[in-house]
Amino acid sequence: MIGMRRFIFIFVASVIAPTFAFAGLLEDAKDTFAPLPEKPVFKAGNPGNPEKLELGKMLYFETRLSKSNVFSCNSCHNLAGGGVDNNTLSTGHQWKVGGRNAPTVWNAALHISQFWDGRARDVEAQAQGPILADVEMAATKELVMARLLSIPEYVERFSRAFAGQKKPMNYENIANAIGAFERTLLTPSRFDKFLKGDESALTAREKKGLRTFMDSGCAGCHNGVVVGGGSYQQFGVVNTPENLTDKGRFGVTGDKDDMHVFKVPSLRNITLTYPYFSDGNVWDLGEVVRIMGWTQLGAKLTDEEVGDILAFFDSLMGDLPDIVLPKLPASGKSTPKPDRG
Amino acid sequence: MIGMRRFIFIFVASVIAPTFAFAGLLEDAKDTFAPLPEKPVFKAGNPGNPEKLELGKMLYFETRLSKSNVFSCNSCHNLAGGGVDNNTLSTGHQWKVGGRNAPTVWNAALHISQFWDGRARDVEAQAQGPILADVEMAATKELVMARLLSIPEYVERFSRAFAGQKKPMNYENIANAIGAFERTLLTPSRFDKFLKGDESALTAREKKGLRTFMDSGCAGCHNGVVVGGGSYQQFGVVNTPENLTDKGRFGVTGDKDDMHVFKVPSLRNITLTYPYFSDGNVWDLGEVVRIMGWTQLGAKLTDEEVGDILAFFDSLMGDLPDIVLPKLPASGKSTPKPDRG
Repeated sequence: MIGMRRFIFIFVASVIAPTFAFAGLLEDAKDTFAPLPEKPVFKAGNPGNPEKLELGKMLYFETRLSKSNVFSCNSCHNLAGGGVDNNTLSTGHQWKVGGRNAPTVWNAALHISQFWDGRARDVEAQAQGPILADVEMAATKELVMARLLSIPEYVERFSRAFAGQKKPMNYENIANAIGAFERTLLTPSRFDKFLKGDESALTAREKKGLRTFMDSGCAGCHNGVVVGGGSYQQFGVVNTPENLTDKGRFGVTGDKDDMHVFKVPSLRNITLTYPYFSDGNVWDLGEVVRIMGWTQLGAKLTDEEVGDILAFFDSLMGDLPDIVLPKLPASGKSTPKPDRG
Repeated sequence: MIGMRRFIFIFVASVIAPTFAFAGLLEDAKDTFAPLPEKPVFKAGNPGNPEKLELGKMLYFETRLSKSNVFSCNSCHNLAGGGVDNNTLSTGHQWKVGGRNAPTVWNAALHISQFWDGRARDVEAQAQGPILADVEMAATKELVMARLLSIPEYVERFSRAFAGQKKPMNYENIANAIGAFERTLLTPSRFDKFLKGDESALTAREKKGLRTFMDSGCAGCHNGVVVGGGSYQQFGVVNTPENLTDKGRFGVTGDKDDMHVFKVPSLRNITLTYPYFSDGNVWDLGEVVRIMGWTQLGAKLTDEEVGDILAFFDSLMGDLPDIVLPKLPASGKSTPKPDRG
C-alpha cells in the first residue's frame, strides 16, 4: 500500500509542480500571440452588412462562377472541413491540377496577405483570382458577369449589398462580397481562452508543448493572432529542404532575396488542413514539425518535443461556425450555359 | 368615364367568375395529387434516428467517398439549389461525363424507384451506385471502407447510428445512412397548402394552369405525391421525340416493351432542376411542356396553355429546408490517400 508521506509527495508533484513549471507561460504567450477578434474585421470601404454577407456566402457556393459550372470556392476551400480540400494539389477545370496546395479559408482574412506567395493583399483581392485561373474555375470576367446579370435575384442582391454605388454589379464586387463573407470565418479555440486568461483551457501536455514551441523558436515565425500568417520567410533558412523547386515569393517580386520565400502558414486548425507545405507532399504533421525544426531552426527535435508540440496544436483546433447552405436562384433563359471545353 | 353598370359587370366578371371557373378544382386535384407527408417516411429496417441522420448528412458531403477526394453526393445533387448540378450531364472522375442528367434528390425518396430507368428500388439502394461508378466517384467498396474505418469518429458514429448491429460499419450502411438522410429532404410548397384545403394558396393563373394540366392529360402521369415519380412511361407514346437514343428501362429489363421507357420525373421544384429530360438537352421549361404535349398526348399546346402550365409549376416550388454543413473529421495516418488516376 502507498504510504501517506509518499501519497502527499505524489500529490504535490502532480498538482503543484506543473503550476511552477508553467510559471510565466501565459505572460510569454500573451507577448507572442493574440486571441482572435470577437467580431469579424471588415476592410475599410467594404463593410460587412448582412445583405453583403449573405450574397458573399451565395457566391462562395456558386458553381456558375466556374466555366463548367462544376466548381465553387467551396470545392477547394471546403467549409465542411478544414477550409481546404485535403488534396496535395487541387483539381480544377478539365481535371487540371493547381500549382500549390490550397490554403485554408478559416481565419485567412487575418493574414498579412493571401496565397502562399502573398501576391494578393487581402481576401477581397484573392477572391478575384481562382475564378479566372485556367487550372481552377477557368472563367472570364465577361462570362461570370453575363451569368450573374442574367439572374434577377443577383441583380437585386448586389443592389442591396452595395447600396449607393452607381454600378453595384461588377467583377470587383463579386470578390468584395466573397471577401466580406470570408472575414466572418473565424474559429476561436481553447488557445484563445487561454490567451484571455483561462489557464485551465489547456492541458498540462498542451502547456508543455506551448513552452517547447516558444522556447525552440517555432514562435519566432508562427506567432500573432493566427499563429503564423504574419510574415514572409525563406523555407530552408538554416538547412535546405528536400525537393524544393517552388521559387515562392521570387515569382512575385523578382528579388533574389525572395527565392524560396513563402508566407508563413497559420497553425490554427492545423490538424484539419493536411497535407502540408506549399507542395502538399507531407501528410504527417509530426514529420512537418521535424522538417521545420531542421530546416528553419537547425534543431533535431526529439520525439517528446514533437509530441508536445503536436499536443499544443490540438489546442488550436477551433470551433467551426455553423454554415447554413445558401439557396441559389435559378438561371434565366439568357444565362450563359456551362462549358466543359 | 366608366358607367356604373359596366363597372359592376367588370367587377362581377373579374371577382366572381374565376370562383365559378375553378369550381371542383380542389376536389379534382385531391383525386389526382397528394400533399407531401409532414414527416419523413423511413424504410422498414432503416429507421431515421438522429445519429443516423447526422451521419448520413456527413457522408452526403464526404468527398472521401470518391477515389480522388474531389466529389461528394452533393457535387451532382447540390442542396444549395435544386438538388441537381444544373448541367446537361454530370462531370465525374477524370473529367468523364455521366450517361444521364442528374435527377434531383429533393423528395426523391417518395418515388417508386431511383434513377431514370428505375434500376434501384429506393434511395438506400441508389446511394450505393455513384460511389462505385467509373464516370462518377470511381471508388471501390474496399477503398471507401478502408477510408472510413481509419477514422475513429466514423467508427463511433456508425456504432451509434446502427446500434445493436454486429458489424455496423459496412458498405450497405453507408448507403443506409445517406438514404435515411435523403428521406428528410422534403420541400413542401404552396401546392401542398392548396391540396390541404387552402384555396387561396394558388393564384388565379396557377389555378387555371392546374386545370389545364389536368384536363390536357399531363396529370395522367405527373400525379401523386411528387407530381410524377410514380410510374414508368414510354417517351414518345404518341409521337416520336427527336434524337431519342436512350433505351431507358429496356437496359434494365431487356423487355422490348420497355424500349424508351423511363420513370416519370417529379415536377416539384421543376423550375430549379433544369436542364430537362434524361439527356439534359432542353433548358427551356416551356419547350419541355410543348415537347411533352406533342410526344405524350399528341397535343399542340397553345402559348396560353403552356404559360398557364408554367404558372402552375411556380406553385410546386417548395420551401427548401435549411441545411447546416456537417463538420467532417480529419483523416488518420492510415487513411488511404486521394487518387486522381
